Amino acid sequence: MSKSPITSPLAEADRQMTGGILQSTLADLIDLSLIGKQAHWNVVGPQFRSVHLHLDELVDMARKYVDEVAERASAIGVSPNGTARTVVETSGLPGFPDNWVSDVETTAAIVTILGELAARLRKRIDEVDKPDLVTQDLLIEIAREVEKQHWMWQARQARGAEQ
Amino acid sequence: MSKSPITSPLAEADRQMTGGILQSTLADLIDLSLIGKQAHWNVVGPQFRSVHLHLDELVDMARKYVDEVAERASAIGVSPNGTARTVVETSGLPGFPDNWVSDVETTAAIVTILGELAARLRKRIDEVDKPDLVTQDLLIEIAREVEKQHWMWQARQARGAEQ
Amino acid sequence: MSKSPITSPLAEADRQMTGGILQSTLADLIDLSLIGKQAHWNVVGPQFRSVHLHLDELVDMARKYVDEVAERASAIGVSPNGTARTVVETSGLPGFPDNWVSDVETTAAIVTILGELAARLRKRIDEVDKPDLVTQDLLIEIAREVEKQHWMWQARQARGAEQ
Amino acid sequence: MSKSPITSPLAEADRQMTGGILQSTLADLIDLSLIGKQAHWNVVGPQFRSVHLHLDELVDMARKYVDEVAERASAIGVSPNGTARTVVETSGLPGFPDNWVSDVETTAAIVTILGELAARLRKRIDEVDKPDLVTQDLLIEIAREVEKQHWMWQARQARGAEQ
Amino acid sequence: MSKSPITSPLAEADRQMTGGILQSTLADLIDLSLIGKQAHWNVVGPQFRSVHLHLDELVDMARKYVDEVAERASAIGVSPNGTARTVVETSGLPGFPDNWVSDVETTAAIVTILGELAARLRKRIDEVDKPDLVTQDLLIEIAREVEKQHWMWQARQARGAEQ
Amino acid sequence: MSKSPITSPLAEADRQMTGGILQSTLADLIDLSLIGKQAHWNVVGPQFRSVHLHLDELVDMARKYVDEVAERASAIGVSPNGTARTVVETSGLPGFPDNWVSDVETTAAIVTILGELAARLRKRIDEVDKPDLVTQDLLIEIAREVEKQHWMWQARQARGAEQ
Amino acid sequence: MSKSPITSPLAEADRQMTGGILQSTLADLIDLSLIGKQAHWNVVGPQFRSVHLHLDELVDMARKYVDEVAERASAIGVSPNGTARTVVETSGLPGFPDNWVSDVETTAAIVTILGELAARLRKRIDEVDKPDLVTQDLLIEIAREVEKQHWMWQARQARGAEQ
Amino acid sequence: MSKSPITSPLAEADRQMTGGILQSTLADLIDLSLIGKQAHWNVVGPQFRSVHLHLDELVDMARKYVDEVAERASAIGVSPNGTARTVVETSGLPGFPDNWVSDVETTAAIVTILGELAARLRKRIDEVDKPDLVTQDLLIEIAREVEKQHWMWQARQARGAEQ
Amino acid sequence: MSKSPITSPLAEADRQMTGGILQSTLADLIDLSLIGKQAHWNVVGPQFRSVHLHLDELVDMARKYVDEVAERASAIGVSPNGTARTVVETSGLPGFPDNWVSDVETTAAIVTILGELAARLRKRIDEVDKPDLVTQDLLIEIAREVEKQHWMWQARQARGAEQ
Amino acid sequence: MSKSPITSPLAEADRQMTGGILQSTLADLIDLSLIGKQAHWNVVGPQFRSVHLHLDELVDMARKYVDEVAERASAIGVSPNGTARTVVETSGLPGFPDNWVSDVETTAAIVTILGELAARLRKRIDEVDKPDLVTQDLLIEIAREVEKQHWMWQARQARGAEQ
Amino acid sequence: MSKSPITSPLAEADRQMTGGILQSTLADLIDLSLIGKQAHWNVVGPQFRSVHLHLDELVDMARKYVDEVAERASAIGVSPNGTARTVVETSGLPGFPDNWVSDVETTAAIVTILGELAARLRKRIDEVDKPDLVTQDLLIEIAREVEKQHWMWQARQARGAEQ
Amino acid sequence: MSKSPITSPLAEADRQMTGGILQSTLADLIDLSLIGKQAHWNVVGPQFRSVHLHLDELVDMARKYVDEVAERASAIGVSPNGTARTVVETSGLPGFPDNWVSDVETTAAIVTILGELAARLRKRIDEVDKPDLVTQDLLIEIAREVEKQHWMWQARQARGAEQ
Repeated sequence: MSKSPITSPLAEADRQMTGGILQSTLADLIDLSLIGKQAHWNVVGPQFRSVHLHLDELVDMARKYVDEVAERASAIGVSPNGTARTVVETSGLPGFPDNWVSDVETTAAIVTILGELAARLRKRIDEVDKPDLVTQDLLIEIAREVEKQHWMWQARQARGAEQ
Repeated sequence: MSKSPITSPLAEADRQMTGGILQSTLADLIDLSLIGKQAHWNVVGPQFRSVHLHLDELVDMARKYVDEVAERASAIGVSPNGTARTVVETSGLPGFPDNWVSDVETTAAIVTILGELAARLRKRIDEVDKPDLVTQDLLIEIAREVEKQHWMWQARQARGAEQ
Repeated sequence: MSKSPITSPLAEADRQMTGGILQSTLADLIDLSLIGKQAHWNVVGPQFRSVHLHLDELVDMARKYVDEVAERASAIGVSPNGTARTVVETSGLPGFPDNWVSDVETTAAIVTILGELAARLRKRIDEVDKPDLVTQDLLIEIAREVEKQHWMWQARQARGAEQ
Repeated sequence: MSKSPITSPLAEADRQMTGGILQSTLADLIDLSLIGKQAHWNVVGPQFRSVHLHLDELVDMARKYVDEVAERASAIGVSPNGTARTVVETSGLPGFPDNWVSDVETTAAIVTILGELAARLRKRIDEVDKPDLVTQDLLIEIAREVEKQHWMWQARQARGAEQ
Repeated sequence: MSKSPITSPLAEADRQMTGGILQSTLADLIDLSLIGKQAHWNVVGPQFRSVHLHLDELVDMARKYVDEVAERASAIGVSPNGTARTVVETSGLPGFPDNWVSDVETTAAIVTILGELAARLRKRIDEVDKPDLVTQDLLIEIAREVEKQHWMWQARQARGAEQ
Repeated sequence: MSKSPITSPLAEADRQMTGGILQSTLADLIDLSLIGKQAHWNVVGPQFRSVHLHLDELVDMARKYVDEVAERASAIGVSPNGTARTVVETSGLPGFPDNWVSDVETTAAIVTILGELAARLRKRIDEVDKPDLVTQDLLIEIAREVEKQHWMWQARQARGAEQ
Repeated sequence: MSKSPITSPLAEADRQMTGGILQSTLADLIDLSLIGKQAHWNVVGPQFRSVHLHLDELVDMARKYVDEVAERASAIGVSPNGTARTVVETSGLPGFPDNWVSDVETTAAIVTILGELAARLRKRIDEVDKPDLVTQDLLIEIAREVEKQHWMWQARQARGAEQ
Repeated sequence: MSKSPITSPLAEADRQMTGGILQSTLADLIDLSLIGKQAHWNVVGPQFRSVHLHLDELVDMARKYVDEVAERASAIGVSPNGTARTVVETSGLPGFPDNWVSDVETTAAIVTILGELAARLRKRIDEVDKPDLVTQDLLIEIAREVEKQHWMWQARQARGAEQ
Repeated sequence: MSKSPITSPLAEADRQMTGGILQSTLADLIDLSLIGKQAHWNVVGPQFRSVHLHLDELVDMARKYVDEVAERASAIGVSPNGTARTVVETSGLPGFPDNWVSDVETTAAIVTILGELAARLRKRIDEVDKPDLVTQDLLIEIAREVEKQHWMWQARQARGAEQ
Repeated sequence: MSKSPITSPLAEADRQMTGGILQSTLADLIDLSLIGKQAHWNVVGPQFRSVHLHLDELVDMARKYVDEVAERASAIGVSPNGTARTVVETSGLPGFPDNWVSDVETTAAIVTILGELAARLRKRIDEVDKPDLVTQDLLIEIAREVEKQHWMWQARQARGAEQ
Repeated sequence: MSKSPITSPLAEADRQMTGGILQSTLADLIDLSLIGKQAHWNVVGPQFRSVHLHLDELVDMARKYVDEVAERASAIGVSPNGTARTVVETSGLPGFPDNWVSDVETTAAIVTILGELAARLRKRIDEVDKPDLVTQDLLIEIAREVEKQHWMWQARQARGAEQ
Repeated sequence: MSKSPITSPLAEADRQMTGGILQSTLADLIDLSLIGKQAHWNVVGPQFRSVHLHLDELVDMARKYVDEVAERASAIGVSPNGTARTVVETSGLPGFPDNWVSDVETTAAIVTILGELAARLRKRIDEVDKPDLVTQDLLIEIAREVEKQHWMWQARQARGAEQ
């Protein structure tokens, strides 16, 4: 099946560039959804319940955009790939520790991961400005949510002087 | 429009006294709703999420009674005033710090504010006993909710010996 | 009313054994529901809200199975007894301290209580295997939920090295 | 922990008196909730289903006010106590028979219990008038619901001449 | 059936006085609910839809308190009477015109009716203070809603100078 | 306002005949809704709760068609009249006893009332066949519901030989 | 179509034995759902409404497991048969009388039917233990619900001495 | 119990004729509901899921009218009969094949069954015009839904030339 | 595709006559739905919001019957046609002005349009009485709703003398 | 009414250009909503149900943006026009065949229509970039949904080699 | 706490510029929410109910974006300030009259306020194009809603010639 | 963190064996959830929509049990691992083709995958019988759902002779 059965609203070069951007975003977001669940099950510490619930919000957000990004790829005639192998090989997110992880370490790891994801999205928003405004609009929406989560997880880390 | 277009079920002196009590309660409660949101956005620290969510409950409570107090004023023929300027000039609540605030400081400030508000409400419940039982009943209901919140925010502060 | 007005699907010996197991489970679970509420009202400390809400989940779980266990007893022709006196006299759960209790102490007490309850349930699951598979299935379901809660309350206790 | 970590909006004497009234109301209401369930599981007779369902309404009402009464105690700085032992030692409600109970006997017992509870509440409403109007308002609300249930359970008992 | 099958929590004189107050409130409120519907069907004019919908809110409020007032009478051992004949003979509300009625006339009539009802309720709140605080609390709640509606219907009538 | 402000889709004679039929149906149904509530509050006996709840279903049905019948009258240019006085003067339903009424007597009275209402509706369905098929369709729908309720209330009365 | 188009997770002998057990359970449950409706429409007597509503709960339960049992048969590669003819020929439930049936007789018949069904299920739970644990788990779940209903319908029958 | 305990709004001859029509409609509709489920479990082929879900809609429709038809019979004083045996002996619907059935064959069989049912309903609508307009209205409503389903199942069969 | 792939429950002449009636009703109702939206967006004046919202109710009603009428045509084997061109060529509704339209003019235009539509429906109800009672029943239902809306929009126009 | 009663946030030239773009988008989308319904009623073939339901999703999407586009026009002071005549005269969408249409032909026609609509939207997104970023944002949102639907309808067409 | 505990995805200059834009938008929107409530309580005149309800929609919109704007500031590492004092000192919205205000004056004031807000937003959309596309996207979304409300409130003002 | 911070209700050997079984089930189920989404985005062919929707049901089922299996591992004191790398290295499910896949091929691949998963679950159910009945109960529940899905996807493949 060498030719895509789905026509593209974009010129071929734009289609390829936009498709590549969507595909790498897809890998990052699936990775985030798996890391979020991994952390959800393994967190321990006094903040257990608060982090446990917050992580499920993060996973819901990730899964929502996993679907929208993949379906945007389909809509421009590019077959999306979201298998575990593709995630392992192409995700750009930092790793997350194995085994039980304290609430403090969990928060630190999530802050790092979201910071990296936000930076990658910002770069893609610039790159996709020419080839496809519709995809750019989707990435801007994702960046808004990711940066909001980034703030919230950072806010957990910041400690007041008197504590 | 010098004369109120809404007749009052109360005698004029009772109307004025009750109207004054409702107006100052209105200013306090709007202030509480704005302070609650200010704290909601600026809190940082390990308790971030728990305080962030608890503040939204407090704001919902404040907004609910803002509406009921203002509409009770209208119902007795007194025009309520809930503009920002009136709040600045007449609210009796203690101030809340600017900028990012730690979860511990946030909790302390909210405890102080709710304590002051509860005291002001108790005094008004006594004053309004003669002029208007209906308004008194509303203030008693508000006091029940404010004192309940006061307990909960104090409970956050109390620490066990062994921690 | 010496004879049960409800016939049993079980032979008499099985009915008595299963009835005894259900009755003691009932006492434990009512005790858990009362302890959960007691803790819900009296907890203090920085984790107040998180523990306060988590305890209500625990109480909901306990009440759900209180009802199912009692109605299973009825279904096998055994009158269930869930009065306060019966709970005091027969519950096997460890006690819970009076008065205000810190979040850390609350968590420790709940962990101990759930651990004991899980152990009692495991023993009953074995005992009821012969007399009544239907009751066994119910106890397995309860054990799954109790052990899940046990993990979550333990997870609150475990602290990371770096905190 | 000799001193309450929760400040009270009441003067000390008022706090003690109101606290005592709330604590004994709490014991009565928890007892009612346990009796209601006990009756719910053990009722037999042609009215089984109607009484079975009506009792769950009664239990829902009891549980709702158990929570509000206990949290009102906390709000005035008094630690509430709702353990099974406290209920056994301090509840003022009449007992309820063990074992399967006919629908007619069940109704009679509930009528007696609600009548006693209503009388105890009326007395407390008078006593709390001076120390705390907010608590009085809560007890009035509970009395309204208890007296309504009392009517309904009495209505079940009253029989027409021609039956 | 000369003796009430429902016992009363009140002394006989209080029962009679409170019962009389509840019965006349019941007649007024049923009358209001019928007038509200009558107006709902017969209003015409540019404000038709707004008045038509507002009247249904009024009817919902009236019906809610019809039920609560009648059931309060039952709860104190007084048989409530809400037949059409009783309403015709005892309601104290002003009449409402037959046939199609303009939105302006409809508003004026509702304002008059609600004003009269509020005044009657205020008087009853005073009278019932001694015999039954629970009934007083219910009447205060009704007065709050009736006076709120009174304000809203008056607000429709008040016209600005420039229109 | 001698001329109707609402034009009619019917010829004048048909409009008058249909209007009369709708107006008398309106009076019957309002009467039914008031009788239903009267019975709801005053029923006593072992079937109290079942009859109490069943009567609320009956009142809901009556109120639903009160509205539809009145609005159908408006739709054909006839001002509907649903005041208490009109109901007293024109309803064709049998009376309902005052004071507390046993469940058995209540059931018997409702059966009689529904039987009479069904007969009156049947007659009107025939009469309206020529002047207005749309109104006939509405009356058929009402008759279906009334006859269904009539069966259910009769079913309560029928007793088996062996009881 | 001599060979099943659906492969089975079970060995052939287990598939046949389990399939037979599921098929006879299916016939019993469809029969129960039809009997439940038959009784629902034909019951008369003072308990009419209570029995009428209780029967709909029973039918809902029966229909839920009809579907799960049939789909379990499909899942193990056995075509389920739920036609009226199959039910007539293979259901093992006792019959239910034609025509109007008193509430007492209805209850007695349902008690007998549920008792028989429970016994048949118990036997199948034993038989299916070896061939398919998954099917056993489903039958245990059904037995729990059937025995619960059996208790409730028996509870209707049991009368207290004093009535 | 030779005489119906439920009086009829119809004259005896009309009651018998209408009762017969409703009874045979009841048998047809129960048969349809059982056939629909049978097909739901046994369909195979590329259209499996679409047919599987569509059949559940058909069953919901059938069950809804099974209830309304049976309760209409009760309402005219005729005991409805919906047992499996009655369905086998009196349903006029064509049979449905045993065992797994392809989606195409399933569709063809349902088309045939619905066509026959629609024809039977049309005939009954004519017959019942004189004895009971209320029953006619119900049958017209059922015919509208059955003919709508008939179209939809035929639409599945019609194939375009180019496929 | 000269022959309809959907068989008809009607004889050919009845099918053609009924099909024609449904097709012209379809064109009218789609026109109404488009006019309603056009008015919804372009209305101005003091009644803006009330008319704006009322028009959306009208559009919802129109769209509901557009679907039911078209699907009734399909059900009798007649392909419905609801394209813009067909509406332009065959709708019998009066036109609606372009551009912004005052609330008073909007109301007047809607009253005229609904009056015409009601008259056209009345005529079709008579014509379809012989060929298809099922379609007649649908048209009667539509007429009830259209005449109800006609009353409401007329009610907006009628002004009281004193305004 | 030569001058718009609604002021525009845009300069006159931008207002005219943006208004033209919105008006032609409005015509296209109304056309799509009517074509979608036309296809919904007339599709036949094995995929009937799947296409029938999918078309309703398409119509919902079209109607949602019809409203948003028209209200955006109003918001910039341009009266939107959505009458049937305007759609016939200005829509740029390809036609859709009359009469019953096979599922395959329906799919092909929808693919063509959505492809054309997507191309028209892309062009307008470019044109509106200068005059109004707010309108551009709306058109980008619509394009995202239209291109997503375009993929889905194309996916229906693509067939695998082995089928 | 001189340094922000929340890192920014923006370069410092962009952060400061975007932060300033968000802060002034926040003040405007809080002011709008307070003005909306002030007007909601004080409006009088024939349009009272329509304006009263419309203002609550406006307040809901304002509050939604108050939250999103403040949280966007947090997300870029800028502490938002939403106290009453800040609103008084920095909001750019025109004032709103004290005391009871006629519906016509209320509408005029809201139109003026929304016009000014829309203009301020348009300017900020341009300014933020370089520093932060994500914030720009949020402001465009707010402008779409504000301009839509601006149209609706203007539409209330526009009167037709004939009135 | 060499020792688990969560105690186990199982003996060490049982804990290790059960933990291993849960961990491999976790990897399989995450793999299934990712494959399901991959197929959801890439399926093409006439069955596109039906398969697309069916796959989302499959993903929902997989995700539900991913969570329950991981949390069961935590509950027995075993840290679950659900990262992409672990899935790649340990999942036992067959692969799924890259790129666009026809509906027929998609169905075939899902059938194969579910068949393999069901076999693996069956084996684990046997192994876990001794070490932990609670985990066995969970695996039996998962097997029931997986085998049900296996039937449904097989049913799509089976074709009737006449197609």
